[in-house]
Amino acid sequence: MTWPSMSTKKIIYRFEAGKADGSGDMKPLLGGKGAGLAEMANLGIPVPPGFTITTELCTAYYDGDKQMPAGLSDAVAENMAWLEKTLGKKFGDPENPLLVSVRSGARASMPGMMDTILNLGLNDATAQGLSERTKNPRFVYDAYRRFLSMYGSVVLNVKSHVFHEALNQARRRMAKELGIDASVDGEALVRAVPDSQLGADQLKQVVEDFKQIIVTATGKGFPEKPVDQLMGAIGAVFESWNNDRAILYRKMHGIPGEWGTAVNVQSMVFGNLGDTSATGVAFTRDPSTGEKRFFGEWLPNAQGEDVVAGIRTPRPISKTATSAGLSLEESLPQSYKQLHDIQAKLEGHFRDMQDIEFTIEDGRLFMLQTRNGKRAARAEVKVAVDMAKEGLVTQDEAVLRVEAGRLEQLMFPSIDPHAAVRAVAHGLAASPGAVTGRVAFSADDAEKRAERGEPVILVRVETSPEDLHGMKAARGILTARGGATSHAAVVARGMGRSCVVGCHGISIDYETQKMTIRPEKGEISIVDVGDVITIDGSSGGVYLGDVPKVEPKLSGELEELMKWADAGRRMRVRANADTPDQAKKARELGAEGIGLCRTEHMFFEETRIAAVREMILAGDLAARQKAVAKLLPFQTEDFIGIFREMNGLPVTIRLLDPPLHEFLPQQVTQIEELAKTMGVAPSDLGRKVDELHEFNPMLGHRGVRLTVTYPEICAMQTRAILSAACKVQKEGVSVLPEIMIPLSLSKKELELMKAVVLEVAAAVFAEHGVEVKYKYGTMIELPRAALLAHKLAEVAEFFSFGTNDLTQTTLGLSRDDAGRFLPEYVDRGILAHEPFVSLDTEGVGQLVQMAVDRGKQTRPDISLGICGEHGGDPESIFFFDDVGLAYVSCSPFRVPIARLAAAQATLRKRVKGEQGRTV
Amino acid sequence: MTWPSMSTKKIIYRFEAGKADGSGDMKPLLGGKGAGLAEMANLGIPVPPGFTITTELCTAYYDGDKQMPAGLSDAVAENMAWLEKTLGKKFGDPENPLLVSVRSGARASMPGMMDTILNLGLNDATAQGLSERTKNPRFVYDAYRRFLSMYGSVVLNVKSHVFHEALNQARRRMAKELGIDASVDGEALVRAVPDSQLGADQLKQVVEDFKQIIVTATGKGFPEKPVDQLMGAIGAVFESWNNDRAILYRKMHGIPGEWGTAVNVQSMVFGNLGDTSATGVAFTRDPSTGEKRFFGEWLPNAQGEDVVAGIRTPRPISKTATSAGLSLEESLPQSYKQLHDIQAKLEGHFRDMQDIEFTIEDGRLFMLQTRNGKRAARAEVKVAVDMAKEGLVTQDEAVLRVEAGRLEQLMFPSIDPHAAVRAVAHGLAASPGAVTGRVAFSADDAEKRAERGEPVILVRVETSPEDLHGMKAARGILTARGGATSHAAVVARGMGRSCVVGCHGISIDYETQKMTIRPEKGEISIVDVGDVITIDGSSGGVYLGDVPKVEPKLSGELEELMKWADAGRRMRVRANADTPDQAKKARELGAEGIGLCRTEHMFFEETRIAAVREMILAGDLAARQKAVAKLLPFQTEDFIGIFREMNGLPVTIRLLDPPLHEFLPQQVTQIEELAKTMGVAPSDLGRKVDELHEFNPMLGHRGVRLTVTYPEICAMQTRAILSAACKVQKEGVSVLPEIMIPLSLSKKELELMKAVVLEVAAAVFAEHGVEVKYKYGTMIELPRAALLAHKLAEVAEFFSFGTNDLTQTTLGLSRDDAGRFLPEYVDRGILAHEPFVSLDTEGVGQLVQMAVDRGKQTRPDISLGICGEHGGDPESIFFFDDVGLAYVSCSPFRVPIARLAAAQATLRKRVKGEQGRTV
Repeated sequence: MTWPSMSTKKIIYRFEAGKADGSGDMKPLLGGKGAGLAEMANLGIPVPPGFTITTELCTAYYDGDKQMPAGLSDAVAENMAWLEKTLGKKFGDPENPLLVSVRSGARASMPGMMDTILNLGLNDATAQGLSERTKNPRFVYDAYRRFLSMYGSVVLNVKSHVFHEALNQARRRMAKELGIDASVDGEALVRAVPDSQLGADQLKQVVEDFKQIIVTATGKGFPEKPVDQLMGAIGAVFESWNNDRAILYRKMHGIPGEWGTAVNVQSMVFGNLGDTSATGVAFTRDPSTGEKRFFGEWLPNAQGEDVVAGIRTPRPISKTATSAGLSLEESLPQSYKQLHDIQAKLEGHFRDMQDIEFTIEDGRLFMLQTRNGKRAARAEVKVAVDMAKEGLVTQDEAVLRVEAGRLEQLMFPSIDPHAAVRAVAHGLAASPGAVTGRVAFSADDAEKRAERGEPVILVRVETSPEDLHGMKAARGILTARGGATSHAAVVARGMGRSCVVGCHGISIDYETQKMTIRPEKGEISIVDVGDVITIDGSSGGVYLGDVPKVEPKLSGELEELMKWADAGRRMRVRANADTPDQAKKARELGAEGIGLCRTEHMFFEETRIAAVREMILAGDLAARQKAVAKLLPFQTEDFIGIFREMNGLPVTIRLLDPPLHEFLPQQVTQIEELAKTMGVAPSDLGRKVDELHEFNPMLGHRGVRLTVTYPEICAMQTRAILSAACKVQKEGVSVLPEIMIPLSLSKKELELMKAVVLEVAAAVFAEHGVEVKYKYGTMIELPRAALLAHKLAEVAEFFSFGTNDLTQTTLGLSRDDAGRFLPEYVDRGILAHEPFVSLDTEGVGQLVQMAVDRGKQTRPDISLGICGEHGGDPESIFFFDDVGLAYVSCSPFRVPIARLAAAQATLRKRVKGEQGRTV
Repeated sequence: MTWPSMSTKKIIYRFEAGKADGSGDMKPLLGGKGAGLAEMANLGIPVPPGFTITTELCTAYYDGDKQMPAGLSDAVAENMAWLEKTLGKKFGDPENPLLVSVRSGARASMPGMMDTILNLGLNDATAQGLSERTKNPRFVYDAYRRFLSMYGSVVLNVKSHVFHEALNQARRRMAKELGIDASVDGEALVRAVPDSQLGADQLKQVVEDFKQIIVTATGKGFPEKPVDQLMGAIGAVFESWNNDRAILYRKMHGIPGEWGTAVNVQSMVFGNLGDTSATGVAFTRDPSTGEKRFFGEWLPNAQGEDVVAGIRTPRPISKTATSAGLSLEESLPQSYKQLHDIQAKLEGHFRDMQDIEFTIEDGRLFMLQTRNGKRAARAEVKVAVDMAKEGLVTQDEAVLRVEAGRLEQLMFPSIDPHAAVRAVAHGLAASPGAVTGRVAFSADDAEKRAERGEPVILVRVETSPEDLHGMKAARGILTARGGATSHAAVVARGMGRSCVVGCHGISIDYETQKMTIRPEKGEISIVDVGDVITIDGSSGGVYLGDVPKVEPKLSGELEELMKWADAGRRMRVRANADTPDQAKKARELGAEGIGLCRTEHMFFEETRIAAVREMILAGDLAARQKAVAKLLPFQTEDFIGIFREMNGLPVTIRLLDPPLHEFLPQQVTQIEELAKTMGVAPSDLGRKVDELHEFNPMLGHRGVRLTVTYPEICAMQTRAILSAACKVQKEGVSVLPEIMIPLSLSKKELELMKAVVLEVAAAVFAEHGVEVKYKYGTMIELPRAALLAHKLAEVAEFFSFGTNDLTQTTLGLSRDDAGRFLPEYVDRGILAHEPFVSLDTEGVGQLVQMAVDRGKQTRPDISLGICGEHGGDPESIFFFDDVGLAYVSCSPFRVPIARLAAAQATLRKRVKGEQGRTV
């Protein structure tokens, strides 16, 4: 195919020490590696000269049905000629051959996408010539065999283990020669006969073996002509952009397939020319802790791949207490000093922690790569804050640099990423944190074990309010059924217990007190009661036995960063909290109010559930009022505690929301007991329970529909809220209650409930002789509510978007049931992402925008917030900032994430604005 | 209160023979009765002179907190003075007293809202004077006692039975006097001592008794001053506008509360002055059949209330074969002739069947009322068509005159409205028609009874595919549980069986073969197996025993009307039909295509369900493909039958939609049997069935989500559709298949399925050596689909609105569960009407409008239709016409309704347009 603008467009960018065609800000065109090399060259940092083929050529390759873009080979030839001239060597010249490396390099770092090809340009003739010139045939044939295996596997698709096996044969031959026992295999063999034991002759034989392998596997010989080698390698880089690993990596990291990769062709330098040669990788700061120290590993007399291959143990770059003589600082102090200066210069130049690769060829230092270094979450925070303090970046830049979602890792224990463990089953990640404990299959057993000091994981098919004491006693909860809004999930989140739900891979037999785990791959395991398992509520993973974990630690740097974030953000951050304890936690983590207090969670408490059930099953108004009255003191006490904790901050309280049957007993004995309490026949009560069954409870008799039917519940809850408010206000603590109606779909519902609220308020204020200011508003969680927001705003003083339900209804997708197909929907790109994690801005976002616009149109000062779980998701928070919400509300532990993301939303806009002005 | 523009605005309109202030088109201001009187007066038809107080005064009364609007009493006095002058009588003058009637009269007829008050102006003095003047004291005191009881009960709120009892006392006294046995009561007593037996003295005593009753009940005396009587009566009319009966009636008929009622004050004429006096009501045509004959009833020597009271048997107006001497035509031929001329004139003038009231006072005819007469559905059709043929109205007017929804009554048997029966329980009206049969509690029993020729009603808690043979055998199906989309409802509608579902008042005991019915009021009934019951699938009523029914009859007039409608409408009408039989029925009823063919209904057939279950429970792709292949021939045969029936008309076929577990066996024995067929362990199969359980199946793994997961189902269905199409096309019959994807929420889903369809289509066309034109499109039934319609239209060639699901998701309301609270939501005005019956245009309508606009924006020639049940609802059809849909699709039996409503939608716009031009 012809590449349209090939003739006019620059398709290759050169770099050499001191100058380059490109620069560091050209990542989209040159890829990260190419841009880094160009920038280093421009800075006068020594880099082996070379050139970068732009990403546009990769795109052209795919647009052209995988044909090499026309003109590319001419351009490569022209640039190779320049390189030959620059170095005074010639490609394929046996006298003084030019050898090059070929590397991919995309806009974003994609480790493992394609292996590097080193030493390209070697063939029998150049190897022979180079041997004579260097007087080091061992080095040359070592390089040649490396090149053959890399080229063979990467470009010619020969299985790499075939090369390994051939090399091992050479080792075995050598072992025989040396009289060593070589009946071992794998690493033991390599340790018994290290590469250094293989001399030039042995390696020459390996080269012959490798060439034969290639002939056998491909039916063609290895391309002797260096130009053919080079064009083959370039094509392989283009191909590697769409190999399975690369596609998977891009999907995981949201990298578009259209970006393509650049190809870097660079003259070789050798770290394996002897003891004054070396190669290494380093970070300008410690990537695990963020500590400011030059940190890395190196190997003398080695090529780059040896450092990461793990066969030879790499040595520390800098001198440490125990490193005597091993560190680069001590071994090659001159080179170390130069490297140290360069890394400082690079960090200062790029204003971020750098991840660098270098090679020392016979005492001469060359930089092969520099890029922003990946780092652990805690290091990310520390580096950003430290750099701001050092003046390297501004505080705002520091705030923008930390990926808000990563803070979650700092709030809970997590599975040690270095631990070699594999989950045996996966469920839905319902409440974060990794915990280990002994399995209990009943709430009673869980409680008993906890009392004797055992850590417990409660494992149930599903949970119900009867299991509450067991859930409290357990460290974590695992269920076979249920979704993200199942009883187990909701309660566990509220209690702060780790939780994995809907784990279809397990089946539980209560009778035999065993669970069977059927992993997707591998063998079935049987877990007995009392066995130790680990669950990770952040990933949904289930593990057998104990598993190494990393404990959370809130650093001083994080607090500093939060302060800067708070100074920068426009949106307020509230927390979803249902109890005084949770309110306290929320304030500690910086919440500026409660955006969602779910009153029904108070109902699940064991001492209250009986009254709740009486209320639900009451045959008439009088009986219901009697039951409701029993709940009043509990609710009032709860609200008093919450108001005291929140000390003048707004508290949005949602009236009863879930379908009533969620509270009901299901077991015969429970029904009989309740019937006794209520003085009714068990069969009548059982029928009533059956009658309350709903086919689609999510779309059933819930939310404001309940209080329309039973206004006495609204009256009781209003009384509890306002009595508590009066009492606390009298204590001298200010209170800001906001009464919120759930699931409304019409103005009329809001009017009906407002009449109840007004009547109760008047009575309560009269009783207490004091008035409390409060707001009355509604959730927007149905499409109809969003569509009619201008009407609802005639009554509602505030809107709080319930984006969980709004997502469920807009997409017609039950969160509890979607597990069966939602992963596939995300994988196949039907939905851009899991819509219950990040808001579906394309669909649901339209309704949010509409409701905001229409609400403001009716009531310009309407208060607008969001209390769905998207309130703690950074991507969603950016959207909510865009549409102009006043606050987001999320789980207490996500408050720091939300504070940071909200600040980033503001700062991004400011940066955009400034760019707008300077352009 | 002061009525703002009282001084300048005309608040009272007079009428007398030959002229009137108002006219017939002033119903909003004068009410129906007042406008009718004015129009009759203008036409020179004899009416007793009087005046009408406008509806605005009623509104002012309520706006002013129920105070008589200022200025009203002066205006009334002024107009009474005019009336006195016109008649030469004086109000309250004992010498020659003026008596008046006071009647309410709203814009729309509201029978029973308020009783009429006659003879107002009587008191002891005027009664005395009138007795002397008329020389007929019996007549006067009869009038007086009637006045007292009417006034007492209507204006002074005395219980009317107290007056009846006092009158009966007088009868008993008389009986004693006459030596008649008067130990009887009620009607027997009235028959023993009719009014005519009570003379002037007795009636005078009754008058005294009545006055005493009023003193006792109210603590005040009866107002003797006629002016006070009049103002009291006017206030009572205003009050009656908001009595319970009136409010209920308005709610049932959608009459706004703001309209208010007018008050008609009219001079009395007396039909009870002797044998040359009479009173009666009549229709210009037969209101039951629509036949063109003057039809009505009259009584000699009576006041209006006697005709309707049912104590004296009214006589026919016109001469009949058996009426000899009794008819008005024979008894008072002069008056009859005059009346006959007037009724003809009125019908001609109003161009509609009139319902008239008249009184003959001493041989002189007066008309008291004329209004458009209410009529039975079949009469409505006949009258409209006849009048068009007579040239009284245009064909378009005839089309506009028939209320489309009423045609339903003509399509199914219905409970005789005249039968004195009461439903003992109510469920959801799931499939129309009233049927009677013997109760069977199992499908097998139903089948057995049907085989012996018994009519059967199958009564189940819920139904499942196992019950299919029993449902087929039964005439009707009654279930205790389930909603309008439950298995029973959907299958019954598909089969054309009457069905009532979710009847919570019944409980069924399969063991004892009994059901218990607990009515809302009244006694519990026990129904044994084999007992006769009647269910009405049009109203949801359940009746004990057999109940008189009216059979449907499609008249020639209806066919004529349909022809006129078809000529007038813009929108096409299709039917929802799943089988060749239904397709045939649909065509007979005028469907112009199939708008929704639900492929899964074919799956419920007993012979196919096993293969369906195999498909669902298959462990892997191979097993699933094997099961799917079994279904292919069935589906292909079905489609062949349908295409042949539809003979070139478009057929929209929806791919598999419902959640899979709907098809699964639930009973242990069934699971075991299936496991045997499939060669798997029953326990494994049971677990799989459990796993498929969904919390909210409506929002679960269904619709296109199923075929995304299992594309082989899409492939099989496409193959069945297109193979059938190829075969039928080769027969020389043209075919227009439209493949429709359900429940889509993204463009990508449509792309994925289109790829499958294209591949199968290419293969099928190659196999058959013929190509068939087909369309590919989607349902719009999720808010997200509507919001992203512009994207979906990039792939979809047509949209069909699935307004059932769109309503469920937009309102967050499960149709199956809403029964618990939806009636209250409509009653309390939270929703304007049942949103599953008539489209919620305010909310859901916005999404429909949006999807239409956005779809057209992408693809201007996109085909747009609707196949939800709203497609058969006239109000919704008007909306669909407004937004510009190309067609509606509904159940076959509603096709005539849709054809008529679609025509009305077009004609209404044309009328509006013409009005627009003339104004």
